[in-house]
Amino acid sequence: MPIRDEFGIIARHFAPLSRGLVGSFGLTNDGAVIAPDPARGLVATIDTMVEGVHYLPDDPAELVARKLLRVNLSDLAAMGAVPESYLLTVALDRLKEEAWIARFCAGLAEDQERFGVAMLGGDTTSTPGPATLSLAAFGRVRGTEALERGTAQAGEAVYVTGTLGDGALGLLVRQGTLTGLREPHRAHLEGRYRLPEPRVLVGARLIGLASACLDVSDGLVGDLAHIAEHSGIGIELESAAVPLSEAAAEVLGDDPDLWPLVLSGGDDYELAFTAPAEADAALQALAAETGIPITRIGRTCAGQGVRVLDRAGRTLALETQGWTHF
Amino acid sequence: MPIRDEFGIIARHFAPLSRGLVGSFGLTNDGAVIAPDPARGLVATIDTMVEGVHYLPDDPAELVARKLLRVNLSDLAAMGAVPESYLLTVALDRLKEEAWIARFCAGLAEDQERFGVAMLGGDTTSTPGPATLSLAAFGRVRGTEALERGTAQAGEAVYVTGTLGDGALGLLVRQGTLTGLREPHRAHLEGRYRLPEPRVLVGARLIGLASACLDVSDGLVGDLAHIAEHSGIGIELESAAVPLSEAAAEVLGDDPDLWPLVLSGGDDYELAFTAPAEADAALQALAAETGIPITRIGRTCAGQGVRVLDRAGRTLALETQGWTHF
Repeated sequence: MPIRDEFGIIARHFAPLSRGLVGSFGLTNDGAVIAPDPARGLVATIDTMVEGVHYLPDDPAELVARKLLRVNLSDLAAMGAVPESYLLTVALDRLKEEAWIARFCAGLAEDQERFGVAMLGGDTTSTPGPATLSLAAFGRVRGTEALERGTAQAGEAVYVTGTLGDGALGLLVRQGTLTGLREPHRAHLEGRYRLPEPRVLVGARLIGLASACLDVSDGLVGDLAHIAEHSGIGIELESAAVPLSEAAAEVLGDDPDLWPLVLSGGDDYELAFTAPAEADAALQALAAETGIPITRIGRTCAGQGVRVLDRAGRTLALETQGWTHF
Repeated sequence: MPIRDEFGIIARHFAPLSRGLVGSFGLTNDGAVIAPDPARGLVATIDTMVEGVHYLPDDPAELVARKLLRVNLSDLAAMGAVPESYLLTVALDRLKEEAWIARFCAGLAEDQERFGVAMLGGDTTSTPGPATLSLAAFGRVRGTEALERGTAQAGEAVYVTGTLGDGALGLLVRQGTLTGLREPHRAHLEGRYRLPEPRVLVGARLIGLASACLDVSDGLVGDLAHIAEHSGIGIELESAAVPLSEAAAEVLGDDPDLWPLVLSGGDDYELAFTAPAEADAALQALAAETGIPITRIGRTCAGQGVRVLDRAGRTLALETQGWTHF
């Protein structure tokens, strides 16, 4: 059924997602109110996904919604913020079926439950072009002590959460370029591409431990280069220390030419951060407590840029240092 | 020149718009921090503009930017919030010229100065479709005392700021449907369509005076119907009392068939609000102080919906009760 009834769509599908959130006015107002909190600052981030660019037109609407929310929650995690609420704006073809919106909202509902967030407000509009979905997410930190990327110092260790390269390899699986994998490995890699796991539990606990942090969304080396540049330091990355999933390890064992994808492919949404040596024990305890691996993969030093070292300590040249969105 | 260099574009054009705003990190971070304020709540709103839907491809980039910011500031004004900052996300064709972005940012810079806001953060991405621009604006209210639309009571007066119908008539001028106007009138109407004037000064002063408020973006009757519905009251609108600009009055004198546009055309971005009788003197003083007319156009009553009365008090039937975005 063609979408014509904006207010009906909002009432039937979006408004239930705001239930229980004081200040959302059930999405009936011009905007929303976030009550004052004397102790905690608000962290805000915004990201857009375009049909055909960031997801495929036949991707399930539930997954599209969850990925849109999660890439934003990953940004909050990178700043150490506890997620709280979000604004959503969707530009959709006016022939888009209402059933698609219903599934999209079901995906949001599922992840709202999982991550403890609710919809604060939004906007719906029509477009003659591809669906364009923007989400602004809000989280809380104590005072203004959010993690940032420009505050690493020389002489610290570099860490990542989880495993790297799964997102980029999962995209190859999805595109049909990488085939012949055993089923659990195929499913693992494709799942990691389709639905990132924002590290919100770890992120909030890194405040006071990490000196600088970001999420790996553009590729490990490219993102570490942001920390190096904005902190005015250099980074040495020990490629042999980069943690791999069992699936990725098997793929790379079969085809070592795919290694650059681990170092510079995007879409992992793990946290990469720096921390002084004295934080190491607390970080290992945090990994044990949350069940999310935290692995030391290098060190910061005087200088600039990211130097990638092989097992023998020789510098590797990378053809691609991450990618940008344009 | 094709846009390929996302980080360069951000550094050259967008980052200067965040200058001086603590917590924006110069747009180099995953997100932004809004410091805690024990006394004031945050009002948040989001709106999207799509090329070819909300503006024309050859509209000047400066004006597109200013309209995008202003429609959001109008939402803040409707809630009585003092504007403070905003997040911006732009999805652009990768062949979009950097010069367009430069002009777009020049428009933002001009209105940042005028309205006292700055850019908190954002996201740039590419799209194969029409440019799609979303802006989330933030403002402040004391505590949580924002104006809303569901709190009008029967027996109050209904007011609007400024003049109505200029936006809809200006669109006709822009489309070439309405011709033969004298130059100052033509320019006035087209200008009102192309660049709304958000009533932020009046909006913030309505807290404590108005009982319910919204901005007229979908048409006066349709928007008043929102107040009626969410407040559980009826509204009687005296059409003869609706304030017109000199230009609109002349157009309607020549062609009374255009009257429905005044009552149900969109894009005026004036404030419509309800207030008890005892607020009238303070409202007139506010109008005198700000130079922005505040006109009583009707009253609230028991019942439901909006009844439009002609000069003789007879009920008018309207063919179009506002319009929705889909």
